[in-house]
Amino acid sequence: MSLREKKKEETKTRLLAAARSAFAERGYAAAKTSDVAKAVGIAEGTLFNYFPTKAELFLAAMLPPPSELPETPASPPGQDPAGWAAAAAAIVDANLRGLAEMEKPLQREFMSLFYGGRPKEIAGLTAFDRRLADRIGAFFAKRKEALPAELRTFDAALATECVCGLTLAAYSVFLMDDARSYPEMLNELRRQFEFVLSGHVPDGR
Amino acid sequence: MSLREKKKEETKTRLLAAARSAFAERGYAAAKTSDVAKAVGIAEGTLFNYFPTKAELFLAAMLPPPSELPETPASPPGQDPAGWAAAAAAIVDANLRGLAEMEKPLQREFMSLFYGGRPKEIAGLTAFDRRLADRIGAFFAKRKEALPAELRTFDAALATECVCGLTLAAYSVFLMDDARSYPEMLNELRRQFEFVLSGHVPDGR
Repeated sequence: MSLREKKKEETKTRLLAAARSAFAERGYAAAKTSDVAKAVGIAEGTLFNYFPTKAELFLAAMLPPPSELPETPASPPGQDPAGWAAAAAAIVDANLRGLAEMEKPLQREFMSLFYGGRPKEIAGLTAFDRRLADRIGAFFAKRKEALPAELRTFDAALATECVCGLTLAAYSVFLMDDARSYPEMLNELRRQFEFVLSGHVPDGR
Repeated sequence: MSLREKKKEETKTRLLAAARSAFAERGYAAAKTSDVAKAVGIAEGTLFNYFPTKAELFLAAMLPPPSELPETPASPPGQDPAGWAAAAAAIVDANLRGLAEMEKPLQREFMSLFYGGRPKEIAGLTAFDRRLADRIGAFFAKRKEALPAELRTFDAALATECVCGLTLAAYSVFLMDDARSYPEMLNELRRQFEFVLSGHVPDGR
């Protein structure tokens, strides 16, 4: 990495840290990109070279960078519905944890913009959705290869749709209900994934 | 029905019609319950005897009354995953159609309030969610009874969770994407339900 690239990486890291503080302190709408830029000692226009929109800055600040995400869980799951479900839930966890650990009101504020029909926020969240779908899709495709030949009709695309849909729904309910904890949400999802996958994955325990 | 009850029913019907116009014309936030009451010639306080909150008035205006909902689809589905899935999708359709036929911006505005952390709107939507879950739950419980004895371990509660979760997610995506039609959404859900149910329901075609 050249000195120039290194300096850019440093600026990015400092921008993300400043953004996390600003959003946590002031909420999404009230936090200003100009203040985030000022805290790091750069112009607002320079900030937009790093993050084209406030929504992208928010998501980048809240979510782990793609490089830190495990593509598939470290320990290979068993070839049974429960093992696949646990592995899929672990991927959901790795992708969602950063966001889910923020204060719920901040997460709700951001999600409400999604419904506010604001194209930039929608694009940001769609990219986030797609990222999760890519990870889950890659996982199922890989697991499918390891199945016995007669089971390779497994529909990885439909399994991905179901897992991502259930995740979106569970996350919405988690956001609405202040009493629901993140581990509870994950545990419920794992049970649902197992229900969805049984009948498609051999029970090879 | 007494004359008094009849008159109350009439007032309710007129309130719902006035509410539908007001919400469609002005949006959720800008529509006023006082104007709806005035259009029907009653006091605002009287309106709240019929519908305790604006959110409940909105949902009542947008959704078919429970009495008009088919509890289970008219034609009994086959005892196979595709039949069950089609029947579950028909129940979703019956419950959601009134809302889904409104202009998407109005639906989005209402859903964004859900994320706005406003307890009354959340309570209204939770009641709506519960209504769908009750219908789907009753359907699965009934179908389960008709299964051969060895298959009566079918987990109707978990199937209901999955169907309702996938519906919430598909509806969110439908709202976000102006290009997505309601029939497309239903069709996708039917395919997902079939994927979820196979392995739990015998393929008895």
